[in-house]
Amino acid sequence: MGDYFKYSNVMREELGSEGLSLEDIEGMRDVTDMAYRRTMERYERGELGFMEVIYEDIEQYSLDDKDFKYILVVGMGGSILGIQMVYEGVKGIYANELSDKKVFFLDNSDPELLHSILKVIDLRETLIFVVSKSGNTVETLANFFVLKEEMEKLGCKRDNVVIISSGGVLKEIGEREGYQIFDIPENVVGRFSVLSSVGLVPLSSMDVDIERLVSGARDMDKICRREDVVKNPALMNALIHYLFLNRGKSISVLMPYMERLYRFTLWYRQLWAESLGKDGKGQTPVAALGAKDQHSQLQLYLDGPRDKIITFIKVKRFRGDFTIRYRGHYLDGHNMSQLINLQQLGTERALTARGVPNLSIVLEDLDEYTLGKLIYMYEMTTAFMGEMLGVNAFDQPAVEEGKRITRELLEGRAKGEEVLEEYVIKI
Amino acid sequence: MGDYFKYSNVMREELGSEGLSLEDIEGMRDVTDMAYRRTMERYERGELGFMEVIYEDIEQYSLDDKDFKYILVVGMGGSILGIQMVYEGVKGIYANELSDKKVFFLDNSDPELLHSILKVIDLRETLIFVVSKSGNTVETLANFFVLKEEMEKLGCKRDNVVIISSGGVLKEIGEREGYQIFDIPENVVGRFSVLSSVGLVPLSSMDVDIERLVSGARDMDKICRREDVVKNPALMNALIHYLFLNRGKSISVLMPYMERLYRFTLWYRQLWAESLGKDGKGQTPVAALGAKDQHSQLQLYLDGPRDKIITFIKVKRFRGDFTIRYRGHYLDGHNMSQLINLQQLGTERALTARGVPNLSIVLEDLDEYTLGKLIYMYEMTTAFMGEMLGVNAFDQPAVEEGKRITRELLEGRAKGEEVLEEYVIKI
Repeated sequence: MGDYFKYSNVMREELGSEGLSLEDIEGMRDVTDMAYRRTMERYERGELGFMEVIYEDIEQYSLDDKDFKYILVVGMGGSILGIQMVYEGVKGIYANELSDKKVFFLDNSDPELLHSILKVIDLRETLIFVVSKSGNTVETLANFFVLKEEMEKLGCKRDNVVIISSGGVLKEIGEREGYQIFDIPENVVGRFSVLSSVGLVPLSSMDVDIERLVSGARDMDKICRREDVVKNPALMNALIHYLFLNRGKSISVLMPYMERLYRFTLWYRQLWAESLGKDGKGQTPVAALGAKDQHSQLQLYLDGPRDKIITFIKVKRFRGDFTIRYRGHYLDGHNMSQLINLQQLGTERALTARGVPNLSIVLEDLDEYTLGKLIYMYEMTTAFMGEMLGVNAFDQPAVEEGKRITRELLEGRAKGEEVLEEYVIKI
Repeated sequence: MGDYFKYSNVMREELGSEGLSLEDIEGMRDVTDMAYRRTMERYERGELGFMEVIYEDIEQYSLDDKDFKYILVVGMGGSILGIQMVYEGVKGIYANELSDKKVFFLDNSDPELLHSILKVIDLRETLIFVVSKSGNTVETLANFFVLKEEMEKLGCKRDNVVIISSGGVLKEIGEREGYQIFDIPENVVGRFSVLSSVGLVPLSSMDVDIERLVSGARDMDKICRREDVVKNPALMNALIHYLFLNRGKSISVLMPYMERLYRFTLWYRQLWAESLGKDGKGQTPVAALGAKDQHSQLQLYLDGPRDKIITFIKVKRFRGDFTIRYRGHYLDGHNMSQLINLQQLGTERALTARGVPNLSIVLEDLDEYTLGKLIYMYEMTTAFMGEMLGVNAFDQPAVEEGKRITRELLEGRAKGEEVLEEYVIKI
């Protein structure tokens, strides 16, 4: 039946008394209409760059033909999570071990990460993308300053650095050094930026079919423009999360049953947390992975506090499937893809029987096109959910505080750590 | 001042009105005394194998001298999370790329994972550990059945398989095939098993110093036997989590500021979720990583719902540090290790100023010894917390339901997926 979004396990027929009725959904028409209208108004006002960029000409994202052995992406949060997610989603597990072009991500200020990467790659054969919208992200600059010094020592040429940024120190350096620079549109927020230059320039150089990726998003855009909630998966998804949040489901678990989708959950985690977590509102996203986390988190989901709504992602086809053979055992003759998908179904039924609301996104296949659909559906879901909650899904004001304190500490304007001995236990 | 556990940021002096007073802690003496007493009673009754195994002779865990190029560990949940955690915690990021011995973990029923690993390794040069306490774990068997068939095709010898199990199909195969077998003590529960044969046999073959690991746990055991809560970091940690859970902090975030500790958070996630999540009780563990997740989750932690207690882990020394040089920028002259640790401090202060309770574990260094301490402190914390909540921290009854349904589906005794069309949106 193709790809679909299923919400029967939040409805009374399946979930019992904890479930929603059709009247519950119909009764929320004013909320869904409002969320839809305000989102489209934001779009009309030019605030929602993520809805615009998918219609840009993708030719602009291609680099001059460059042949590097290694690719290194330097960035934090929205400047890198989306790239990692698409790269792994398309190229799969252990892509570096199985391909000639090896891709690394530098996404922390932990010196050990940089140290290890520098031991593995040869900077003279590395194409480096430095991504930061502000151009002032502290971890990105720290890593890049060290890289730059190393490159100078090695006499690397300047055509191995590409800057993707709207300003700040990074763009200054790029202009001074003559690096290739790609702009990020002002109205595209970091966590919504994977389908802009932020994601598409690096992904294109990683041999990801960005045309198919964007094409999936465009097709999903049509679906998400439907005004009727029962026909619009993003609006319905937002509404269901909103209704269950109001019923005490303060945690939203995203649990795909496919290794390649693990980083999709990390991308979602930022999107949901940073967009909605403000003014005391929001819902805590939790990243899980099936079948693995059945052996870690499922006990809690089934029998712990009733504070969760769970979304499964199931993909029907896997690459390189195996038939399991062991005479006399009940696994004999089954494919592993059957096993993992029946584990998902078993878990879904166990949760539903216990009254834990759960949704499913079912895909025939995972490739650039379906990933593009999935990304865009979640971006629209988040936009709609922001309007329902009455928060601005497109800023993140609170994170400035920690940054300010850290800068004061670095500049010696704030006192370092002082430990109150009476509240310390030596270990 | 050496390694320490700091709880000042949950106390009134730092946190303000949301904080605890010394009287709050003193007033819970009956609870901490009860939790301590019941835990020791369980231990005396021989129920807490994890407290016993650390005093076993570690010689028993060494394999006959074997020289393999690859190591593959097959297991799920408690049979593998601890091994991954210690391996990465000790050997670091990109250990495979930087070492001659390459280690892989097969911990899902996703065929793509197995497929990729089989493309990377050569089974004839691979030492395989198959770990399952019951010996019947479905994913482990599925992977192993396929591996076994491949090994037979390639004519691998039997001395490249090591079984770590207490029974089931796995032990039967091991006995029939003449594989080397290590038992798992009956009273050691999977998620508490990393310091038993489950972890120590594979880790020893990965050149981890298991003597230092266990030695850290033994020293922590002495500390965790102290009856006085203000001297016992595990008892205090449990009490603080218990008190804040009762005040609506339904989520416990563990956030180390070091890449090598990321898998510690995944190990903790199972320990906390599966041990405590039952009878409607428990607290949802969330794995985070600093400084990275400041760009993903911090907005929610600072300004979202007030439902979290956060534990930082900070390590003072990093391997292969860098000095950042860029004239005129405030980062100039700082080391990256200073940067990441000041980011942690900035975040801690921002959270405290907003009234979000937070704890810190501060270590001089991360190695086998300190990791052993950390592991054991968390095992004891979980044991104490189980007694405070009045749940049995050492079973996981609810997960059987999904397994039963999956088996019925595999055996054709239950109906496959049926989709209620009215609650589906095609995407």
